[in-house]
Amino acid sequence: MSLMSKQVTLSQAAELLRSVEECIILTHRYPDGDAIGSSCGLAILLQSMGKRAKVVCGDPFAARFSHSTDGVKPETVSPDAPVVTVDLADVQLAGAEYTALAERAFLAIDHHGTNTGYADYTFLDRDAAAACELVALLARELAVPLTRDLANCIYTGICTDTGCFKYPSTSARTHRIAAELIDAGADAAAISRIMFDTKTPARVMLEKAVMDSITYGYGGKLAVTLLSKAVIEESGAEEADINGLSAMARQIEGVELALFLRETGRERYKISARSGDLVDAAAFCAKFGGGGHRRAAGCKLEGDLDTVRQRLIEAAGEVL
Amino acid sequence: MSLMSKQVTLSQAAELLRSVEECIILTHRYPDGDAIGSSCGLAILLQSMGKRAKVVCGDPFAARFSHSTDGVKPETVSPDAPVVTVDLADVQLAGAEYTALAERAFLAIDHHGTNTGYADYTFLDRDAAAACELVALLARELAVPLTRDLANCIYTGICTDTGCFKYPSTSARTHRIAAELIDAGADAAAISRIMFDTKTPARVMLEKAVMDSITYGYGGKLAVTLLSKAVIEESGAEEADINGLSAMARQIEGVELALFLRETGRERYKISARSGDLVDAAAFCAKFGGGGHRRAAGCKLEGDLDTVRQRLIEAAGEVL
Repeated sequence: MSLMSKQVTLSQAAELLRSVEECIILTHRYPDGDAIGSSCGLAILLQSMGKRAKVVCGDPFAARFSHSTDGVKPETVSPDAPVVTVDLADVQLAGAEYTALAERAFLAIDHHGTNTGYADYTFLDRDAAAACELVALLARELAVPLTRDLANCIYTGICTDTGCFKYPSTSARTHRIAAELIDAGADAAAISRIMFDTKTPARVMLEKAVMDSITYGYGGKLAVTLLSKAVIEESGAEEADINGLSAMARQIEGVELALFLRETGRERYKISARSGDLVDAAAFCAKFGGGGHRRAAGCKLEGDLDTVRQRLIEAAGEVL
Repeated sequence: MSLMSKQVTLSQAAELLRSVEECIILTHRYPDGDAIGSSCGLAILLQSMGKRAKVVCGDPFAARFSHSTDGVKPETVSPDAPVVTVDLADVQLAGAEYTALAERAFLAIDHHGTNTGYADYTFLDRDAAAACELVALLARELAVPLTRDLANCIYTGICTDTGCFKYPSTSARTHRIAAELIDAGADAAAISRIMFDTKTPARVMLEKAVMDSITYGYGGKLAVTLLSKAVIEESGAEEADINGLSAMARQIEGVELALFLRETGRERYKISARSGDLVDAAAFCAKFGGGGHRRAAGCKLEGDLDTVRQRLIEAAGEVL
């Protein structure tokens, strides 16, 4: 956390939001359920307070997130409107197109311990299972009623970031918020089905490719999977089809560190690390300039596949 | 619900439990997480009230449920101790060995709308997502503190019966109970991981084989998958590794009928049919002398693979 950014409490964050008349809400590229849910949720929240809000992201939001996106009114805001980021740990994660926008953020709402403190003010709660959990707290603090649309956004982020309440980040507070969301009419079962129990044919193709790619190391404690650009293109997959593939190998009995290599360009790989109790995935990724959470982190590597894989396997040996 | 059984409220059920000094707790055969969690949970609850309680079931509880079973003290009760059933909709489901015991139940604690009313008193709440949800309510009603062991039992039943909070049966109450369980120290993440996110290497191999085998028909409304005897043997899979493979193709977007062919012998196939809203899987399987539920049914076919597959595809055309 940079010394440049002032850490603010929930009530201070609420006060900052109250102070704006319009707002650009920015989240990270490769948007997942929490990025989409928290950005759309915050937009709905601010719009219901009579403010103009617009969500921006370096990638489009997939159609299956319509439960979250439908509630946001399309609005125009001035290009120099204040910027609030959600679920954005680092300005780089906004993508090249939006890095500059992220750099002028006045408020960051985040749950990543690795948040770099790029914003003027940072509302960071690393105990929150999702950025959406913070949107729920802000709604309560600002006395904004949970409409069904807002509840759907928040539920989407919470259920996706917790693997539907399975991950250790799920707290009693997470469940209490979920209860409020259901009371508010959230389409919890329908959203859960879309997020977890519906696979596009493209997703099925990607899962096959990932499973076919599994290699093990260190007596089965390491599993490495690969998703090539060619397979992604051949499958016609959208970004949403790719989310969560990184966790597949983590489910295998005995695997303590699962590394998922996604080819993003020529000799460029985005690595997602998912770990068990014994390994700190964030510390592992830090070896390569990356970061994240203890159980889920990421980094980038360049080079030919064999070299990249070998570097990762060697580094894994130091933590396994 | 039989007229012979008196429907009781939560407080009446609690009063009935208070009145016993010892108790045999019976649940259904092929015990799942809710059967195990609710029977062990009730035993822990009664034991903590100073009563003797013993759990019985027609099948052993699997080792992966140790989070639930470990908290139960082994105790001896007289053979004619009062019988309480949990999660048992019908005496037949106790299995032949325990049908007579079920028939003399004085209290049934259940959440199945199909409960036949075999017990003297029935505490039935069909809005409960799990029998374990009722054990949680009883603990509160009886002012029994939620110990970690008791919380683990209840969490196990709730998470398994709701597909980890995904199914429509999950209510705001379900989440509020989960919050209390986590406050009480339930190992929620560890239990969820064991129940949902742990795959044996054999299971991974079978899933790969099933996914590799997918063929589609009728514009993607039919998906047919195959698991050969050779693959099962090569993988070293146990029966538990095969459970649920039939549902894999059902998750694919657009698939209304998923047929899973499991080779059981030379030119012998066991077919599992899983359907969406539009197709009656039981009616489909009835064409081949099988049966089951609307969304999940089965049948058997003999012949060479191509012929079997062709017969199924033709029959599928009549229902799609």
